[in-house]
Amino acid sequence: MKPLFILSFTVFFTVLNLVNSQTLQSPSAELTMEFSLKNDGTPAYQLSYKNKVVIKPSTLGFELKNDEKSLLNDFTIIKTNTTSFDDTWTPVWGEEKQIRNRYNELAVHLKQNGTDRIMIIRFRMFNEGLGFRYEFPEQKNLVYFVIKEERSQFAMTGDHTAFWIPGDYDTQEYDYTESKLSEIREKFDSAVTDNASQKQFSKTGVQTALIMKTSEGLYINLHEAALINYSCMHLNLDDKHFVFESHLTPDAQGDKGYMQAPCTTPWRTIMVSDDARDILASKMTLNLNDPCKIEDTSWIKPVKYIGVWWEMITGKSSWAYTDDLPAVQLGVTDYTKVTPNKTHAANNTKVKRYIDFASAHGFDGVLVEGWNEGWEDWFGKSKDYVFDFVTPYPDFNVQEIHDYAKSKGVKMIMHHETSGSTRNYERHMDKAYQFMKDNGYDAVKSGYVGNILPRGEYHYSQWIINHYQYAIEKAADYEIMVNAHEAVRPTGICRTYPNLIGNESARGTEFQAFGGSKPNHVTILPFTRLIGGPMDYTPGVFEMDISKLNPNNNSHVNSTIANQLALYVTMYSPLQMAADLPEHYEQFMDAFQFIKDVAIDWDKSIYLEAEPGRYITIARKEKGSSNWFIGNVNGNNPRTSTIKLDFLDKGKKYMATIYADAKDAHYKTNPQAYTINTKKVTSKTKLSQLSVSGGGFAISIKEIK
Amino acid sequence: MKPLFILSFTVFFTVLNLVNSQTLQSPSAELTMEFSLKNDGTPAYQLSYKNKVVIKPSTLGFELKNDEKSLLNDFTIIKTNTTSFDDTWTPVWGEEKQIRNRYNELAVHLKQNGTDRIMIIRFRMFNEGLGFRYEFPEQKNLVYFVIKEERSQFAMTGDHTAFWIPGDYDTQEYDYTESKLSEIREKFDSAVTDNASQKQFSKTGVQTALIMKTSEGLYINLHEAALINYSCMHLNLDDKHFVFESHLTPDAQGDKGYMQAPCTTPWRTIMVSDDARDILASKMTLNLNDPCKIEDTSWIKPVKYIGVWWEMITGKSSWAYTDDLPAVQLGVTDYTKVTPNKTHAANNTKVKRYIDFASAHGFDGVLVEGWNEGWEDWFGKSKDYVFDFVTPYPDFNVQEIHDYAKSKGVKMIMHHETSGSTRNYERHMDKAYQFMKDNGYDAVKSGYVGNILPRGEYHYSQWIINHYQYAIEKAADYEIMVNAHEAVRPTGICRTYPNLIGNESARGTEFQAFGGSKPNHVTILPFTRLIGGPMDYTPGVFEMDISKLNPNNNSHVNSTIANQLALYVTMYSPLQMAADLPEHYEQFMDAFQFIKDVAIDWDKSIYLEAEPGRYITIARKEKGSSNWFIGNVNGNNPRTSTIKLDFLDKGKKYMATIYADAKDAHYKTNPQAYTINTKKVTSKTKLSQLSVSGGGFAISIKEIK
Repeated sequence: MKPLFILSFTVFFTVLNLVNSQTLQSPSAELTMEFSLKNDGTPAYQLSYKNKVVIKPSTLGFELKNDEKSLLNDFTIIKTNTTSFDDTWTPVWGEEKQIRNRYNELAVHLKQNGTDRIMIIRFRMFNEGLGFRYEFPEQKNLVYFVIKEERSQFAMTGDHTAFWIPGDYDTQEYDYTESKLSEIREKFDSAVTDNASQKQFSKTGVQTALIMKTSEGLYINLHEAALINYSCMHLNLDDKHFVFESHLTPDAQGDKGYMQAPCTTPWRTIMVSDDARDILASKMTLNLNDPCKIEDTSWIKPVKYIGVWWEMITGKSSWAYTDDLPAVQLGVTDYTKVTPNKTHAANNTKVKRYIDFASAHGFDGVLVEGWNEGWEDWFGKSKDYVFDFVTPYPDFNVQEIHDYAKSKGVKMIMHHETSGSTRNYERHMDKAYQFMKDNGYDAVKSGYVGNILPRGEYHYSQWIINHYQYAIEKAADYEIMVNAHEAVRPTGICRTYPNLIGNESARGTEFQAFGGSKPNHVTILPFTRLIGGPMDYTPGVFEMDISKLNPNNNSHVNSTIANQLALYVTMYSPLQMAADLPEHYEQFMDAFQFIKDVAIDWDKSIYLEAEPGRYITIARKEKGSSNWFIGNVNGNNPRTSTIKLDFLDKGKKYMATIYADAKDAHYKTNPQAYTINTKKVTSKTKLSQLSVSGGGFAISIKEIK
Repeated sequence: MKPLFILSFTVFFTVLNLVNSQTLQSPSAELTMEFSLKNDGTPAYQLSYKNKVVIKPSTLGFELKNDEKSLLNDFTIIKTNTTSFDDTWTPVWGEEKQIRNRYNELAVHLKQNGTDRIMIIRFRMFNEGLGFRYEFPEQKNLVYFVIKEERSQFAMTGDHTAFWIPGDYDTQEYDYTESKLSEIREKFDSAVTDNASQKQFSKTGVQTALIMKTSEGLYINLHEAALINYSCMHLNLDDKHFVFESHLTPDAQGDKGYMQAPCTTPWRTIMVSDDARDILASKMTLNLNDPCKIEDTSWIKPVKYIGVWWEMITGKSSWAYTDDLPAVQLGVTDYTKVTPNKTHAANNTKVKRYIDFASAHGFDGVLVEGWNEGWEDWFGKSKDYVFDFVTPYPDFNVQEIHDYAKSKGVKMIMHHETSGSTRNYERHMDKAYQFMKDNGYDAVKSGYVGNILPRGEYHYSQWIINHYQYAIEKAADYEIMVNAHEAVRPTGICRTYPNLIGNESARGTEFQAFGGSKPNHVTILPFTRLIGGPMDYTPGVFEMDISKLNPNNNSHVNSTIANQLALYVTMYSPLQMAADLPEHYEQFMDAFQFIKDVAIDWDKSIYLEAEPGRYITIARKEKGSSNWFIGNVNGNNPRTSTIKLDFLDKGKKYMATIYADAKDAHYKTNPQAYTINTKKVTSKTKLSQLSVSGGGFAISIKEIK
């Protein structure tokens, strides 16, 4: 069934006078964008919020490759169109049952003097921000062209505070640094931590989504929407003038975009508000993507899962089956003749234990990594034929596991690590997806760890972004849901392809086993990474001392158990993992009850409190139910939330179960100290709830009928 | 059926004394190779022929990337093995019914001091030359490594005459230059002519196979065999010392080979003889390849074909369906709504005319280029999704053509132009091959015109060579024969995968419509390009004045008609085209009779006369028949061949039909002047036959029963 469109929009269309300045307001009239042409015909825009400038005059255009005259200046306006749009659509899954898409639009048709080339800049103004993109209609004088650099500026009004990660062509898996814009350069090197694949381009280069706060209390978010067949945009800062400029990810030859008109760029987005909660609530990014292109979406379902994974991440177990092999030749190496190591986790016995646990506690699925041949030499070798995605290790019986899972009412989740060898993955994709369907797998976690093959391409270059999209669309043909790790960070494409139920593309929970993440990390991610779509953050770790899993790993999970529970609400995703080992959950079954209870699809979301780097509190109503769930994650300093439950139905009575930090809890010194209390609540209830450093709370609210 | 192996070989094995010098002789004892380690542990070899040095001491090894110690020196010999091998095998198709594979072998096991890395250099000495390769067995200290450059030297003894084309990462489609080695540098720039994709690397860089002649009358050929999962080797000349060194084709990052032990390099081959005919007769290159890996080869059959092709090459017709479209979006562009041009050749009416002609004259197949959507913007745009390989233009009805061809007993030949967009081809390959099988196509001509995608890779880099091999092996899965144009030049892989029935990979007949090739071009190709395998040279052009096809094209075919006929014998291929238009053949039906009669598969080949750049005369006996065919191609100067027919069965009588240049014929001024005579011949007959400049003769000999 195609998502319903409730058609309530009105369109009006005007050809304005051809003056060199055009104005566009948000439906609320709080935001105003002024487009203008400079004297030399360079397009520029500025943005104001409540009559104060947020983006100073910023130029727009492209530097082209070769001898072509660039698309930077010498433009005249030949036409402008304005439109208003107001529509409500129903996502297949999401934070809201329905999403309103309301904006005013200005399309500026530019013609370049001398070349007669046409470029349209289309602006869409929502109440929470501005989106714009470049469009190249079919024309004689501009058909194929190569972008040397996109020159879209975002000129800040001052030395704002930013929560940033280093601009990188290959990874977003960094901790956030909070600093003034002027401090980025000096803090850059220490912000770059090791990753399996990484390539920075500038000491003032940062990634989007970027969240900033001005000294006047304005929140500004820069990102992009609908990144299709284009290179991923980073931002490079002129830190003398506080002007960001787009910096696209190059290909092996340094080129940044191969274009064929008619075509469009992704949308560049600027969200602005004096209330941080508006940034979290915004559906601008989704709204700037195309409607769903999958006809029948009945097979797409949110998934709560566990997995044979955390024990490998922590080093307790291994993906590899043997320690004998310095190198594997798939199809030649005979695994029945090697000595198994004692640490291979993806074996029949263990997987059945996980299936039993999933079944007993109502999980939809079980992910198993390390099930297939090739893990002995999968990483860092630039190995082309690294996996075939269909051949299990001797101790993993696909049919037996499939039958067992089916008998227990649990779905197996497939794992396709590509090791960045994209051609190899594409060569095997049809067979791999068919193998999934033949064996009862509906969803795949794919991975792109390490440098990309072909060599010279990056994780975020146009060629490879095209690959990720190919995988999503081909998976849809097989009715397979995709959760792509190490792929480019999402830009709302899940509206168009809702089988993209998750991405990693940021520093996930795994880093808690690789040395730890900052305690306030999860108070930033919803303002940055989650702007583009759900993250498979894999929360739910209860054992914070990793040395208990692996004596050689002294990493500590910088979070309290209550904080871990809250993540199921604050980190919106239709795909939620309970990442820890069954035996750890069995030690804390009362706390684990929240993970069992919490919904993964929602009718409504209320953003109660939010301050990036400090705290986030969100309430969500379970889809098709009267149950509510509240999550609060807290940063470095202890804090007491005061929240009104006035979103509850008036007159109804509810029972709240509050999972909170104990008073003496602390992410580092006492992370497992929590309290669980129940309390009758109504829409008139006010709650006052402490969260410790790196802590939080989670509340389930069920109607008393 | 797997080719039969007639097991008559003997093997003996010895561990020689571990001295620093080893000798290997050919079975005939005419060739002697001496391997030695220099004082610094650098491996070196030299080669003598009839007690005269042919290759002076030449070093062997590899420069590795990064901080690794290279594999250049510090070696000690830890073991040597010698073996003799003598075997006869039956090719699926070929110049001979059976091929003898006889050689002496020396394997030198080297260990590098300090690193304890093992490298084996394996030499195989045939009567006609030496092959050697590097082998890296499974070992602890050398598993994955990256080749910065292979450093295999071929030190010439003097300033030989060479027939060379410029070293290039992307094309071999050059005319040959005949010069002294010392003259390569000065002649290099003029030897580089325009091509759709080209990239030279050195002013003394040349390609293999390279044929040289010494002042003492020795012929030396340098090439490689079994180029699988490695980069194509060029030769770079130190023109002060006349030392060639291997120069591998780099990838986008400049790397030349990603290796995983156990592995081997291709074979480097040096053929030597004082009789040029031995070079042509050699089966060394095939013998150095693995035996056939296709179990059932019954579906692989030699093909004589015509095609809707030459009229596009000459510019008389077009591949594109319309002139309306500046750019095509496959799946979006609606071809039923555009204005067809009047020049699109691949239409039902014309194709049926070709099918009729093929059927009437006993051709196996009809190739049609330009049948599928996308030709309007296929070239030079770095366009990724350029063809889908299954969607015909509106005027080409696949089913109708299929039915018509079937009714006439003719097979259609598929055309897959990739425009160098290798990922796109791989993405569509399964569907494209299945489409072929569904529609009666057994063979495909594939093309790689223009620069390679992904950008930064070259036609001859390891990544793309891997692609060509993927296409061949996948085609074999579908029982499809492959004729790949613009792919890397062959290296005998057709022994292992005999479904590779042809390649272009040199300057083919098409260049006769692009300004012309040198008249002696075809007297060189058998010494160079054909060493690695058959070429789809597309001979048989009878109308030499291209302006008669296209008034805007003043190109001239530098060949006589008799020369064109001879090519079917001298340019061995199991795939032979009659390239010209049916209406041209209809003007010369007596000469055309030879093309109809000539065989395309052989029991025996006799190399009667040969001198590179001057002349080649070959006699071949048709497979399973008593018919013989003789071809002579001649270079710039008129020449009379004197040939004995003593290869004919004694006591039998034959009727010879001699297609010869008229006395006043000339490739340029009078190319269509020929004579046809018949004559009774026996094994005692001697023939004396004139060939004019750029001329030749062709003789069919049929037993009188």
